Amino acid sequence: MPQDKKLVTEITPRDEDFGRWYTDVVLKSGLVDYSGVKGCVIMRPYATALWENIRSLLDARFKATGHENVMMPLFIPESLLNLEKSHIAGFAPEVAWITHGGGEKLAERLCVRPTSETLFCEHYKNIVHSYRDLPQLLNQWCSVVRWEKSTRPFLRSREFWWQEGHTLHATPEEANGEVMRMLDIYADFAERDLAMPVVRGRKSESEKFAGAEATYSIECMMHDGRALQSATSHYLGDGFARAFGIQFTDRDNLLKTPFQTSWGMSTRIIGGIIMTHGDDAGLVLPPNVAPVQCVVIPIASHKEGVTEAAQALTAALNSSGVRAKIDLTDNTPGWKFAEHEMRGVPLRIELGPRDLEKGECVLVRRTTREKSTIAIESAPALLPGVLEDIQRELYDEARRNRDAHTSEARGVQEIRDILSSKGGFIHAQWCGGPGCEQSLKDELGLTTRNMPFDLGRIADKCVCCGKQADIPALWALAY
Amino acid sequence: MPQDKKLVTEITPRDEDFGRWYTDVVLKSGLVDYSGVKGCVIMRPYATALWENIRSLLDARFKATGHENVMMPLFIPESLLNLEKSHIAGFAPEVAWITHGGGEKLAERLCVRPTSETLFCEHYKNIVHSYRDLPQLLNQWCSVVRWEKSTRPFLRSREFWWQEGHTLHATPEEANGEVMRMLDIYADFAERDLAMPVVRGRKSESEKFAGAEATYSIECMMHDGRALQSATSHYLGDGFARAFGIQFTDRDNLLKTPFQTSWGMSTRIIGGIIMTHGDDAGLVLPPNVAPVQCVVIPIASHKEGVTEAAQALTAALNSSGVRAKIDLTDNTPGWKFAEHEMRGVPLRIELGPRDLEKGECVLVRRTTREKSTIAIESAPALLPGVLEDIQRELYDEARRNRDAHTSEARGVQEIRDILSSKGGFIHAQWCGGPGCEQSLKDELGLTTRNMPFDLGRIADKCVCCGKQADIPALWALAY
Repeated sequence: MPQDKKLVTEITPRDEDFGRWYTDVVLKSGLVDYSGVKGCVIMRPYATALWENIRSLLDARFKATGHENVMMPLFIPESLLNLEKSHIAGFAPEVAWITHGGGEKLAERLCVRPTSETLFCEHYKNIVHSYRDLPQLLNQWCSVVRWEKSTRPFLRSREFWWQEGHTLHATPEEANGEVMRMLDIYADFAERDLAMPVVRGRKSESEKFAGAEATYSIECMMHDGRALQSATSHYLGDGFARAFGIQFTDRDNLLKTPFQTSWGMSTRIIGGIIMTHGDDAGLVLPPNVAPVQCVVIPIASHKEGVTEAAQALTAALNSSGVRAKIDLTDNTPGWKFAEHEMRGVPLRIELGPRDLEKGECVLVRRTTREKSTIAIESAPALLPGVLEDIQRELYDEARRNRDAHTSEARGVQEIRDILSSKGGFIHAQWCGGPGCEQSLKDELGLTTRNMPFDLGRIADKCVCCGKQADIPALWALAY
Repeated sequence: MPQDKKLVTEITPRDEDFGRWYTDVVLKSGLVDYSGVKGCVIMRPYATALWENIRSLLDARFKATGHENVMMPLFIPESLLNLEKSHIAGFAPEVAWITHGGGEKLAERLCVRPTSETLFCEHYKNIVHSYRDLPQLLNQWCSVVRWEKSTRPFLRSREFWWQEGHTLHATPEEANGEVMRMLDIYADFAERDLAMPVVRGRKSESEKFAGAEATYSIECMMHDGRALQSATSHYLGDGFARAFGIQFTDRDNLLKTPFQTSWGMSTRIIGGIIMTHGDDAGLVLPPNVAPVQCVVIPIASHKEGVTEAAQALTAALNSSGVRAKIDLTDNTPGWKFAEHEMRGVPLRIELGPRDLEKGECVLVRRTTREKSTIAIESAPALLPGVLEDIQRELYDEARRNRDAHTSEARGVQEIRDILSSKGGFIHAQWCGGPGCEQSLKDELGLTTRNMPFDLGRIADKCVCCGKQADIPALWALAY
């Protein structure tokens, strides 16, 4: 059946050209379509369903920790964006400007939000007056716009979807506690639900958010050894609050300035899922977020009772909490196998007339292609456990890959050797000087990903300049 | 306790000035805050939670009828917007234009989507080739921008949130079936979940959507007798598809042009809920969409066991499917009663030390203020039924109000008399001529809301010109 293989062979092999493999997978699996505006993609139903699952799992964690959602305006007046100086310096070069509305030139131009700190500050100034109004724990799900020069679906686009949390607290201690709580929520979500092992740590000065006192990130390793910054959590101190004049009367009756955080995860994480778990046959989706967890494919569906039995099984699976779907298109079974493999559906059930006679069906795992014959009746009770196993195996595999591609380096030549051999994450001591950071970036394209919380001292001296160095850091090529 | 009443007395009485009453309610109940951009509001947590409930109930209906969600770009290139002539004529005067991005002037300006027909058409042209690719049943939840001159929270704003469905079909019959199916879904949702009785019907030529062959609407009566167009469903024919060159190869191997629909409901409906059910004490929210269905208020909460019992009851209510919340702020009970009434929470439970001794609590309905004493133990089983009763009563009350303010008219003087006495909906026969429609609009501000499916012949002659008339129509002042 040459046609059945066509879908698969159209995907560039992963280890031949990782970039082309990625583009093939996102387009052919039906995740995105390009739009007429450069750098803006269409999130097709499959990507949207995936994002809705991500959203629902993260949102439940936000709400369980006391956060509420809001919907803020899309536009920021130029004068408002300008209020916090380091913030505007970081974002001004990449915003899109509205100059005309309703047929007239606007008195003041508006930018399309690249992030919403300034909007939240303006709102907080209106609604926060007393310690009773604190903390403010707000979040929004929306899209933002940054006018990137070179773009790639999910990884870097001019419009992307995300959530942005913005909170306001009476003390720096409480705000810092929030920053860490949210970083931990992202780490927990990535590891448990996306099967992506993370490195939690603090960003260097040069890599922190424009306007933040400190930025923390979770960093994940992609299959090609590069790092993906997968979520960030910022401690903003009282810089924005001072710039916007936000004040509150504390319990001691004194007027004080509150302390702020912001934190976000975006559709970029979908690129991370793809590049962590995908293989030569296409996507591999972690069961916890897969839009379809099990596809049921009737074989010889014209034979009496086959379609009905497959439909009954699909319904029974859905009743037991498995997101199951039947494929009743008129494609051949072989085509269907390849298509759902390409779309990364964790499990496939094949059900033909002979299986039906024996009360059995064939269960196939996307990851290993391992086949087993099981009783139809037992499937609804069995599958949730199988999905959990797959979820854990995906995490273990990604963890093994990361550990196998993480090295220590004590000098620049050692770094060069690692990059030219196995690549991946490099643990190396750093003096903290921006010069050393810049020099490794210029020569090797390497950046500090973060200063991991869990990383012990690698050496006494800086990997770059050889001077006394106190900071163990994670370095990598990054997306 | 004068402080306790302050919240309430700050609301303008509904029958004194309905417009001011509305503004007071939306601001003081914490639904919205104004932003620095004229006509763009902030949807605060309470409004966002309400919209999330609306979204989840509507989205389930869309998915149950085979629709899938997508996320389309925010921007439309000018040349793309220009492709369908009557569409651009309708929308060009009210769009916002991006002229600069990333520090440079754009080669072609982009508008912020006022609606996304053109984006869906461009996408459909890419993905639809054969009858196997039809129907396309897509929807998106997003915000859109229309540069309105005069704005009011929810009712008319420069940015608003909505869902927009866009579908593509092989035949006009199938597309028209979809148009009616979606209108019925809106009607069912409005009546069952929002307790808002609707009039389903077809819009006149002058009131239809720019680019549509036919527009259908559901119209609801607000407390002041004015109409609110609450959702629309459009039959677009093949006009857009021809303009965009969308074609498919049918089963008979001929190249054909498909037929299209679009349909939407927006955050405007929140204004409708407010103006249908609200009263002098503030909001009244239908239980099916209320963010909080029952607030639990401990009385003398410092007394032993009161707070614990109230917390246990709140948890038990949540377990039985009631969205319950405890109010543990240090406001007085009287203040809390007024505040949650103002926020339209359908039920309140008061629980004090004496109640606790007897194993009882006091249940108060928002609508009637009727109080009853019930056993604490029985509350979790009892409340779902009480909420259903309230939901039904709200519908019945709105229906009674609408019927009491619906009149028939057979001449212009009769219309003037109705408008100057009780106002409301007017059933009157119409010749279908745009001149008569325009004349009643100019003189009385009256518009045809729609031509209701269920309305029989009122008279033989047009209410305006007196000529032979075939169309029974619904006329009203409208938001």
